[in-house]
Amino acid sequence: MASVRLEEIVARYGGELVGDGTRPIRQVASLDRAGPDEISFLAHTKYRQSLAATRAGAVILMADSAAGCPTACIVCAEPYAYFARVAQWLNPPASAMPGVHPTATVESPVPASACIAAGVHIGAEVSIGERACIGPGCVIGTGVDLGADALLHANVTIYPGCRIGARAIIHSGAVIGADGFGFARESAGENAGVWLKIPQIGRVIVGDDVEIGANTTIDRGALDDTVIGHGVKLDNQIQIGHNVRIGAHSALAGCVGIAGSATLGSRCTVGGGTVILGHLRIAADVNISAGTLVTKSVPLAGTYTGSVPFLEHAEWLKNFAHLRRLDAMADKIRALEIRLAELEK
Amino acid sequence: MASVRLEEIVARYGGELVGDGTRPIRQVASLDRAGPDEISFLAHTKYRQSLAATRAGAVILMADSAAGCPTACIVCAEPYAYFARVAQWLNPPASAMPGVHPTATVESPVPASACIAAGVHIGAEVSIGERACIGPGCVIGTGVDLGADALLHANVTIYPGCRIGARAIIHSGAVIGADGFGFARESAGENAGVWLKIPQIGRVIVGDDVEIGANTTIDRGALDDTVIGHGVKLDNQIQIGHNVRIGAHSALAGCVGIAGSATLGSRCTVGGGTVILGHLRIAADVNISAGTLVTKSVPLAGTYTGSVPFLEHAEWLKNFAHLRRLDAMADKIRALEIRLAELEK
Amino acid sequence: MASVRLEEIVARYGGELVGDGTRPIRQVASLDRAGPDEISFLAHTKYRQSLAATRAGAVILMADSAAGCPTACIVCAEPYAYFARVAQWLNPPASAMPGVHPTATVESPVPASACIAAGVHIGAEVSIGERACIGPGCVIGTGVDLGADALLHANVTIYPGCRIGARAIIHSGAVIGADGFGFARESAGENAGVWLKIPQIGRVIVGDDVEIGANTTIDRGALDDTVIGHGVKLDNQIQIGHNVRIGAHSALAGCVGIAGSATLGSRCTVGGGTVILGHLRIAADVNISAGTLVTKSVPLAGTYTGSVPFLEHAEWLKNFAHLRRLDAMADKIRALEIRLAELEK
Repeated sequence: MASVRLEEIVARYGGELVGDGTRPIRQVASLDRAGPDEISFLAHTKYRQSLAATRAGAVILMADSAAGCPTACIVCAEPYAYFARVAQWLNPPASAMPGVHPTATVESPVPASACIAAGVHIGAEVSIGERACIGPGCVIGTGVDLGADALLHANVTIYPGCRIGARAIIHSGAVIGADGFGFARESAGENAGVWLKIPQIGRVIVGDDVEIGANTTIDRGALDDTVIGHGVKLDNQIQIGHNVRIGAHSALAGCVGIAGSATLGSRCTVGGGTVILGHLRIAADVNISAGTLVTKSVPLAGTYTGSVPFLEHAEWLKNFAHLRRLDAMADKIRALEIRLAELEK
Repeated sequence: MASVRLEEIVARYGGELVGDGTRPIRQVASLDRAGPDEISFLAHTKYRQSLAATRAGAVILMADSAAGCPTACIVCAEPYAYFARVAQWLNPPASAMPGVHPTATVESPVPASACIAAGVHIGAEVSIGERACIGPGCVIGTGVDLGADALLHANVTIYPGCRIGARAIIHSGAVIGADGFGFARESAGENAGVWLKIPQIGRVIVGDDVEIGANTTIDRGALDDTVIGHGVKLDNQIQIGHNVRIGAHSALAGCVGIAGSATLGSRCTVGGGTVILGHLRIAADVNISAGTLVTKSVPLAGTYTGSVPFLEHAEWLKNFAHLRRLDAMADKIRALEIRLAELEK
Repeated sequence: MASVRLEEIVARYGGELVGDGTRPIRQVASLDRAGPDEISFLAHTKYRQSLAATRAGAVILMADSAAGCPTACIVCAEPYAYFARVAQWLNPPASAMPGVHPTATVESPVPASACIAAGVHIGAEVSIGERACIGPGCVIGTGVDLGADALLHANVTIYPGCRIGARAIIHSGAVIGADGFGFARESAGENAGVWLKIPQIGRVIVGDDVEIGANTTIDRGALDDTVIGHGVKLDNQIQIGHNVRIGAHSALAGCVGIAGSATLGSRCTVGGGTVILGHLRIAADVNISAGTLVTKSVPLAGTYTGSVPFLEHAEWLKNFAHLRRLDAMADKIRALEIRLAELEK
């Protein structure tokens, strides 16, 4: 796509056009870097000074920012979502040629519209959706069901029996369906302390429109399935334990870990590096801040946080050492209160 | 295996059978979901209400729960370990056909009983044990020694010279033997601040009966070896630094990081997301809770914890801000004590 | 290389030789394990007792330790950096045979000096530097630019358009250039709560002399590029978000996560498991301790820490419960101060 005119954008996605509708737009860019054939957006008023200085051909913004725009603009209620749509239109996914690369080893039928790249291995009894695209080096285990228009980047691994919904995007190095961490410990006898493996016979069921980040891992269920709801977005290096259930349209940032059998409701957000312990139930519309360890169920929507501040190292030494003595500190306060009450009498 | 009779299970693994021994059992399942040809277990008394309602064909449980069981049961001392054995029997590993796939590139001899899948690369001077099974896309470096009955799922990488014990299970994306993070920093001269790589010439030595989770990484030693003891179980996304030594039958949950040269004793457990700093020594039988940062050696067995509670965000703001002022708070208490003592005189 | 004489080492790297310069040295080793044909080093005086007992053929050390050395020694100002150079000389990288393995699928020209291993896939319009070495199973996307003498271990993935500098070392499972985590959320209408993908059209630009650890992920930029400066060293399992910029010669330990658009200055060090939130600016020469959550920009060089101590579990229960009541504790202290002042009047 060489370029589109501003009036074509508005015809397609709505909003109010202010300025020359014939201006050609070739690409999206940030306010600071955009040139005359690029379109940018303003979603927060704190970036208004970038707006005043922008060289963009057009800007997507809300009505109350339009007056300060030095160039053409599209006025709408949700500039960032509008920008996402324009960016998608201007940047369609690279269209791989349909067909099966001669170095792929494929033991199941593949629709003519699908694209199977070099070195892919597809086991038996696999169902591949129309227009699915599987990148170089991916391994798809026996009996997997892969939805239409799914896009697997290079070197993704899907274990046997898992189901991936339509339009899934799975990034390189992701592993779907490895065994959950399930062991029983011998507590007595000559083998005391030895771990016995519990075969993991559940599957991973991934809904439609899910994106899974690079090197993220989702374990198969022990007995029942691990379930990722529709529209869930998982960033890189996330670990999802066996039998976890994540509600639709939840979004988890990088390096999150969710232990076995935890349940998240729909539309939750989880900040980077957060760990959620096993068997907990998190309600819908819960936001958990980055760096939190969730140790109890969260039955009510809201925002929850458990991170500690950081300090210059000498200040940290002085302050955080008291964490080992908080109970003694509380005792001292109680003793002071008693002595003071005595004096006051 | 179509099904086994209850009496066959008891003949094989012991325990006391209560009920009809001819009942055929096809699979294991949870108390809530099991049907009449499935066997379940009860390991904690808190699930007794599930027991009362179960439709399972049989339940493995302890003597004190037998009275409440509505179906056949096997009474034994350790129901979960017993269940593990039954589950293993009913779910033998998928038996891959022995042989070397024509797309594998193999520069070492392979026993006829081993299974080398599509796209595998095996370097020179590699020793492959009997019945080892190497999944699609695995790369085995020069001089690796892989034990009998080892199972490598797809896309595992083992660097040159490492040794993997018998019956190891290694999940996809795991990387064994990458270089440890060893650099010397130039402190003066025109290259001040530049890092010089220390060649990492040790190996990784993995014992027998070890399981390594998906995308877990274990670095090779700098000068000496990194050592993972027999029976160790590592969950997904764990990072083990160079020259770490983990004692036999320890189990580490997901997202744990262990820095270089730390030593863990035998039968330790480490909760998810915990980080253990370098050069520390952790005794045998130490349990470390999830989300803990271990900054000192632990010479005594026991349970250790260092995580912080999480709160509703407004409560967190109010309470955790004081962490920056704990020292001032302690000073105020001390001043109050002095003034009060003065008054009391 | 069979062995070198001590005098050859000193001729090459300087320092003052004490002892027999003709002694042959075959390898580097630790003070405790070195034998008569091995060379070791002493960088910290706390290891002096290992020095006294060493059987090494020679030791690299500072002048003030030379008197306690029972064997030949090389006296220099920076023993560890000196040792790194000697270790590199004695352990040159395994020299792979130049050439393209017949199972590789290569759609771009490859210099005769490069080594492309089995099962590698290289897309179109890729530029491969002289003597670059690409391990088995790597996937190099369209339009990638890979510098001279770059070394990619097995199963590395590089997405289209990224640039990797000269002499880069990238370990197995690393993923360079996956999409950043960029989504706009629909806030109203029938699709409220649904995430819209923002195409990620920036690249990853990696400088010269960078090392990237196993299973580390570096996301491509959203609009502009993600940039890793010259000489940066990244350990395993690090996650770098889109549009992050890391200054030259910074070093990040394992399991670090850096959220989108954060900027680190040059020569920073970041301890294991630390998380840096998005859009922050960290100055040059900042050291961040392990296990810290960085929630604010750091404008000044120095060391910063935010980790909490760990305790025996019962002690932890007693002390850390007060974290939920710190504000009430501060209120009590204030009330005591007022009542006491009243009494003192």
